[in-house]
Amino acid sequence: MQGQAQQQAYDRGITIFSPDGRLYQVEYAREAVKRGTASIGIRTAEGVVLAADKRSHSPLMEPSSVEKIHKADDHVGIASAGHVADARQLIDFARRQAQVNHLRYGEAIGIETLTKEITDHIQQYTQVGGARPFGVALLIGGIENGEPRLFETDPSGTPYEWKAVSIGAERGDIRDYLEEQYHEDMDLDAGVGLALEALAKVNEDSLSPDGVGVATVDVETEQFSSPSEDELEAILAEHDVLASEDGDADE
Amino acid sequence: MQGQAQQQAYDRGITIFSPDGRLYQVEYAREAVKRGTASIGIRTAEGVVLAADKRSHSPLMEPSSVEKIHKADDHVGIASAGHVADARQLIDFARRQAQVNHLRYGEAIGIETLTKEITDHIQQYTQVGGARPFGVALLIGGIENGEPRLFETDPSGTPYEWKAVSIGAERGDIRDYLEEQYHEDMDLDAGVGLALEALAKVNEDSLSPDGVGVATVDVETEQFSSPSEDELEAILAEHDVLASEDGDADE
Amino acid sequence: MQGQAQQQAYDRGITIFSPDGRLYQVEYAREAVKRGTASIGIRTAEGVVLAADKRSHSPLMEPSSVEKIHKADDHVGIASAGHVADARQLIDFARRQAQVNHLRYGEAIGIETLTKEITDHIQQYTQVGGARPFGVALLIGGIENGEPRLFETDPSGTPYEWKAVSIGAERGDIRDYLEEQYHEDMDLDAGVGLALEALAKVNEDSLSPDGVGVATVDVETEQFSSPSEDELEAILAEHDVLASEDGDADE
Amino acid sequence: MQGQAQQQAYDRGITIFSPDGRLYQVEYAREAVKRGTASIGIRTAEGVVLAADKRSHSPLMEPSSVEKIHKADDHVGIASAGHVADARQLIDFARRQAQVNHLRYGEAIGIETLTKEITDHIQQYTQVGGARPFGVALLIGGIENGEPRLFETDPSGTPYEWKAVSIGAERGDIRDYLEEQYHEDMDLDAGVGLALEALAKVNEDSLSPDGVGVATVDVETEQFSSPSEDELEAILAEHDVLASEDGDADE
Amino acid sequence: MQGQAQQQAYDRGITIFSPDGRLYQVEYAREAVKRGTASIGIRTAEGVVLAADKRSHSPLMEPSSVEKIHKADDHVGIASAGHVADARQLIDFARRQAQVNHLRYGEAIGIETLTKEITDHIQQYTQVGGARPFGVALLIGGIENGEPRLFETDPSGTPYEWKAVSIGAERGDIRDYLEEQYHEDMDLDAGVGLALEALAKVNEDSLSPDGVGVATVDVETEQFSSPSEDELEAILAEHDVLASEDGDADE
Amino acid sequence: MQGQAQQQAYDRGITIFSPDGRLYQVEYAREAVKRGTASIGIRTAEGVVLAADKRSHSPLMEPSSVEKIHKADDHVGIASAGHVADARQLIDFARRQAQVNHLRYGEAIGIETLTKEITDHIQQYTQVGGARPFGVALLIGGIENGEPRLFETDPSGTPYEWKAVSIGAERGDIRDYLEEQYHEDMDLDAGVGLALEALAKVNEDSLSPDGVGVATVDVETEQFSSPSEDELEAILAEHDVLASEDGDADE
Amino acid sequence: MQGQAQQQAYDRGITIFSPDGRLYQVEYAREAVKRGTASIGIRTAEGVVLAADKRSHSPLMEPSSVEKIHKADDHVGIASAGHVADARQLIDFARRQAQVNHLRYGEAIGIETLTKEITDHIQQYTQVGGARPFGVALLIGGIENGEPRLFETDPSGTPYEWKAVSIGAERGDIRDYLEEQYHEDMDLDAGVGLALEALAKVNEDSLSPDGVGVATVDVETEQFSSPSEDELEAILAEHDVLASEDGDADE
Repeated sequence: MQGQAQQQAYDRGITIFSPDGRLYQVEYAREAVKRGTASIGIRTAEGVVLAADKRSHSPLMEPSSVEKIHKADDHVGIASAGHVADARQLIDFARRQAQVNHLRYGEAIGIETLTKEITDHIQQYTQVGGARPFGVALLIGGIENGEPRLFETDPSGTPYEWKAVSIGAERGDIRDYLEEQYHEDMDLDAGVGLALEALAKVNEDSLSPDGVGVATVDVETEQFSSPSEDELEAILAEHDVLASEDGDADE
Repeated sequence: MQGQAQQQAYDRGITIFSPDGRLYQVEYAREAVKRGTASIGIRTAEGVVLAADKRSHSPLMEPSSVEKIHKADDHVGIASAGHVADARQLIDFARRQAQVNHLRYGEAIGIETLTKEITDHIQQYTQVGGARPFGVALLIGGIENGEPRLFETDPSGTPYEWKAVSIGAERGDIRDYLEEQYHEDMDLDAGVGLALEALAKVNEDSLSPDGVGVATVDVETEQFSSPSEDELEAILAEHDVLASEDGDADE
Repeated sequence: MQGQAQQQAYDRGITIFSPDGRLYQVEYAREAVKRGTASIGIRTAEGVVLAADKRSHSPLMEPSSVEKIHKADDHVGIASAGHVADARQLIDFARRQAQVNHLRYGEAIGIETLTKEITDHIQQYTQVGGARPFGVALLIGGIENGEPRLFETDPSGTPYEWKAVSIGAERGDIRDYLEEQYHEDMDLDAGVGLALEALAKVNEDSLSPDGVGVATVDVETEQFSSPSEDELEAILAEHDVLASEDGDADE
Repeated sequence: MQGQAQQQAYDRGITIFSPDGRLYQVEYAREAVKRGTASIGIRTAEGVVLAADKRSHSPLMEPSSVEKIHKADDHVGIASAGHVADARQLIDFARRQAQVNHLRYGEAIGIETLTKEITDHIQQYTQVGGARPFGVALLIGGIENGEPRLFETDPSGTPYEWKAVSIGAERGDIRDYLEEQYHEDMDLDAGVGLALEALAKVNEDSLSPDGVGVATVDVETEQFSSPSEDELEAILAEHDVLASEDGDADE
Repeated sequence: MQGQAQQQAYDRGITIFSPDGRLYQVEYAREAVKRGTASIGIRTAEGVVLAADKRSHSPLMEPSSVEKIHKADDHVGIASAGHVADARQLIDFARRQAQVNHLRYGEAIGIETLTKEITDHIQQYTQVGGARPFGVALLIGGIENGEPRLFETDPSGTPYEWKAVSIGAERGDIRDYLEEQYHEDMDLDAGVGLALEALAKVNEDSLSPDGVGVATVDVETEQFSSPSEDELEAILAEHDVLASEDGDADE
Repeated sequence: MQGQAQQQAYDRGITIFSPDGRLYQVEYAREAVKRGTASIGIRTAEGVVLAADKRSHSPLMEPSSVEKIHKADDHVGIASAGHVADARQLIDFARRQAQVNHLRYGEAIGIETLTKEITDHIQQYTQVGGARPFGVALLIGGIENGEPRLFETDPSGTPYEWKAVSIGAERGDIRDYLEEQYHEDMDLDAGVGLALEALAKVNEDSLSPDGVGVATVDVETEQFSSPSEDELEAILAEHDVLASEDGDADE
Repeated sequence: MQGQAQQQAYDRGITIFSPDGRLYQVEYAREAVKRGTASIGIRTAEGVVLAADKRSHSPLMEPSSVEKIHKADDHVGIASAGHVADARQLIDFARRQAQVNHLRYGEAIGIETLTKEITDHIQQYTQVGGARPFGVALLIGGIENGEPRLFETDPSGTPYEWKAVSIGAERGDIRDYLEEQYHEDMDLDAGVGLALEALAKVNEDSLSPDGVGVATVDVETEQFSSPSEDELEAILAEHDVLASEDGDADE
């Protein structure tokens, strides 16, 4: 109780530190990320894989409208977890930054540069008053100078680069699975498989094609691409995680 | 009591997260939506149907003044539920965006584009201080590239695309009915019928022509249209939901 | 007590919702309207009638200075109830909008357009911080395309169109009387009579010429006009609601 | 106690309504007016009279420095009651408005127009945050189109037109006396007499020339004028309210 | 206790009135004035006298650095009591106003005009949020059209004109003495004497030349002037208020 | 308890002092620094050494993404401890200042000048409202006029120049070690060795090449340089602090 | 307790007065000054002496980085006590004012003028909201028109001129010593000696050359100058206050 009262005294304004040097609003924004369904990123020798749990609560909702993986530029994909409306703002911000780079420098934006522009934007919302932090984490994957790169942004505005990473619900379990199974010389297909297996692990071992999102950015083509629903069904079957019953018979 | 006191500590400022990562003001704005009477959207093969419960509390009020379905552009209709004055602001915003699109690009605005512009606008009111969220949800229905599209916006600023959807009071019951009865190959008339039956379900099985609003956007004509009161009376009779007594004998 | 404490937690800032989705400051502004004396609007086949209870507390006050019905343009009258100084601001706003319409489009502003401009203005004061809502309701009556129109604006910024309506004190009793007595094919004189009878109902059945305001906008002339005090005395006598003793013998 | 705690919850911010629709800060500003000594205005057939109680607490203070009646333009006088520094701001505002009218339209400002410009200014301070209301009431008297006009402004920004009126301390007693004694066909001298008698009533029936201020605006001359101290002494004697001992023997 | 709790509820924001119509922050600023040592102004037939108690707490401090009487223009002196840093701001403001008058109109600023510009400036700090009132009172003395004028400004922004006046500590006792001893036909020397005697009254009947400040503005010369320390010592001796021991033997 | 309640009263707004003259928010920001892993700076006769503990919590994270030492200009390196996102903002700020200096003056920015521009920027966030202090300390090392310089910035915006210094976790223990072992005539290699030994002291005497960052700025070359991971492994082995098992076998 | 609760009610906002007319935030800023180590200023016939206690807590810190005496212009030195980062801001402000004076008027800024510009700047931070006062006092010493001048600024923005003065820790003891020993006809060397003896008095009678700062501005040269460390050691020895053991053997 005492500790709790203590904590409450410092967590209601984003612009203040607690006596032990913490920014509670940023930590609570991280909780908003955990409330979101999981997204996974995997960097393979052949490119970057993004995958996301996007189960809908209603068969009448268009699966595309809960899409959690977006193309930010030809060579960049972004997956998110957390407050959906906040994610959309940051993805729009990312797209504008990518366009501006094309216009100014006549070339595709670097993945690291793009990530830093996003995290600078996020950090501002944690230091200057009059606004709340973004309640979302992003995975930014793409090809830069022929190399696959995979970054995470968190609500404090810190960027991290990963070989394989998970954000959102059950982050811990998925990370454990990734640490066990990941190796850097995987090809893209193996990366997609690992991502889907990890998602299935925390979904009673089965996934339906419209409840999961997958995208890749290939080192060769440097193009963001997403499998069709049929292709995705085949991939799920191949990895033995296809749900036996498709929940939405109308489609 | 303890839990309640806890909650109260975090719900009085829109710009802060609660310790479990929630934005209470946005959640309360969703309650404002639930306080509004129901609106329904149905996407059929032939176009989009919007229907709304618009019962007035007085026979002296002009039914048109509680109109909940508005034409945003020739090819777009918007239905709302929740805080009426807020709805009007967003519908005006939508109309301006549609006009600007005509002026800038010489063509009709896409339904998805329009929806995203509206949700971006809504999201700003949930992150930046000095204002409250919009206490309203919208259904945005129209034709884009010859295809019917139906979107919902919620007070967080998240867009959802639906085959059939309900917002406002008794959302749960109506959704259950829609999930049972909806199929994607319905024609427009069947869609209108389903919407009215669903509204009647939560209105003691009967509707009067001036207590309900209906509009369609047809794939062929790409035009928003609304039945006259006489046509509406016929439709209600046809679907066996016409109220036996018309509450306002003066008209 | 518990419920009251709950309510108090959410009603001191206009920009926040209560947990059940209400905007208390807007609701309290509606109470300010109820504190004002009654105004009545009646739409007849021949034009619109506005009437208002404007009893003064002192025989030394000029009756005109408690005038509650104002001409906003040649073809538009506005009656108010509630916080007087706020009403004056909105009436000035209405007049400016009417003038701007003349200047921009060379024609008289539509009654519905004018109403929407006023309600947009009112809504802003309920969503953006740093100001309070307007504590006033207006009745806006006039002729548009040869048709009589009668609108109400409330403190939330919602417009309503009415056949007959009352705002301010004892709204319920007056409304009941109007619902009983009103029929759409009334002529202007009958409308004036009904309005005065309704006011008299809640004033011990008698009105003095300087304690009541009346105005009409005629479909034929499309002109706002107000009876002289003598004419008004005759009208009151005709409808058998003239107070037997004139409270201000000095005039 | 309960009621008081209730009230306190709503009276500390000017921009909010109490649950019963009141603006407490405006009501408290009215208390500031009551704390000021009385001012009186009387409209006669021949012009407007302004009179004010301006007793000083020290014989060393210059009587002119507690002057409560000011010339706003050749044809307009303003008397005040309440917070002196606020009164000065509004009187300066009135003078600027009068000058601007001369410059723009080449003619003297109307008394009603001037009053409305002042009350608009006052109302802004009651609705928009970041400032407090003006703690002062004004009596604005002058000639417009050959007619005497007398207005009051209150802290809410509402204008009232009066035949005879009192603001400030003991308003009730003075008003009762005015209601008994006033008749509209008084000449200017009778008006001055009535005003002084009313002031004397609440001052133990006697006034000293340097403890009272008087001014008139004559219908004929349309000029603001103030009696000299000797003239004022004669007037006081004539009306039998001259204090027997002059409090300041040094002059 | 109850009363105190009541008061505390209204005294922490400058922009609000208490229920009895008071502005507590302005009243507290008046307390800051009382915390300052006394200043005295006396208007004589031959000019204005300003005198101030400026005892230093250390013999090492330069007496000039606690100077409380400043020349604002050739013909105007200003004495202060209260928060020293605030006084300096207002005196700078006064000097700028005096200079601007020379530049704009080619003549010396009137004493009353200057006073009003200062009080307008002070009043703003009591009505608009985001700042505190000035915690200082000023005595402004000078010659205008050949006449001596003496004004006081208080923290509310009200100007008063005086024959003789005291601000700061022990204001009551000094005022009593001035009221007893003052007569309007004093010459300048008698005025200086009275001011020093009044200061001595509340300083154990003796003053040292470096613990008191004196200045005059003469009707003849219209020039601010200040006696040298030797002259001041002679004056003190002449009025029998010279302290027997000079506290600072080093000078 | 009493003391704690006292403290809480003054630590929630950055712009206020506590009664004992402390700025608690700045002190809490210093706690945020202590929560970060250690960084060390050592000034030797041959140049400046920066070293940092950058252990990652996951083998899947790219070590470079927890880099804590950055090149700010050819001749300047910056190490940080504390809130990572804040550090990134200040390092970007430093880089811009360095670039601006090149553009304006055509020469490299001085280390002291750069430090002062950073500390001025930090100080602003401790005095002006609407933002929180930076929760980070920096070590700024480089060559100026052929001399090695090493500065620390703290969250109050104070710069310190050091011969050898540690920021972040376990600052006390590392400082004790540095005070014992440091001497000014060390060469660069000895400086690197001392920094690594100090880091190892608080890391169970062993470091892995990807858990530590090292950089130097050489007096000769005036260039920032960082050893490769292999070089770093050799250096660690040479100083007998190489961890026996490399935690990330995949690399 | 009661008194303390009272005080707490008024000390958390810089823009408000307490009921007894005090500005607590300014008083707390004075406490921040007392937390700083002492600085001393002495005005002699030959020039001004500034001295400061600048003991470092670590032998590894560069003594110059705790320098508390700065040259503001060729003829002006400034010593500080209190919040170091605030002192740096004011010293930068002073330097800019001195430069601007050179540019505008082609001459060195007067010491009194410079002091007033600094105190005006400080005062603003005590009256206008959104910032805290400066937690620092300055001693400003220099030559103006061939005369030595020595000013103090305090956190309220009040300037004082002194013959000899101390700010910061143990101000009372040092002042007593200065009052005993100071005489105005001291030469510069005697002034330096007195300053060092006073510092030694509160430092166990001994000072080390790198723990004390000294500077002078000579009437002849009108140049700020500071002894070298060797010269300072000689001076300390001459005055018998040289610490027997030099704390930093490495130098």
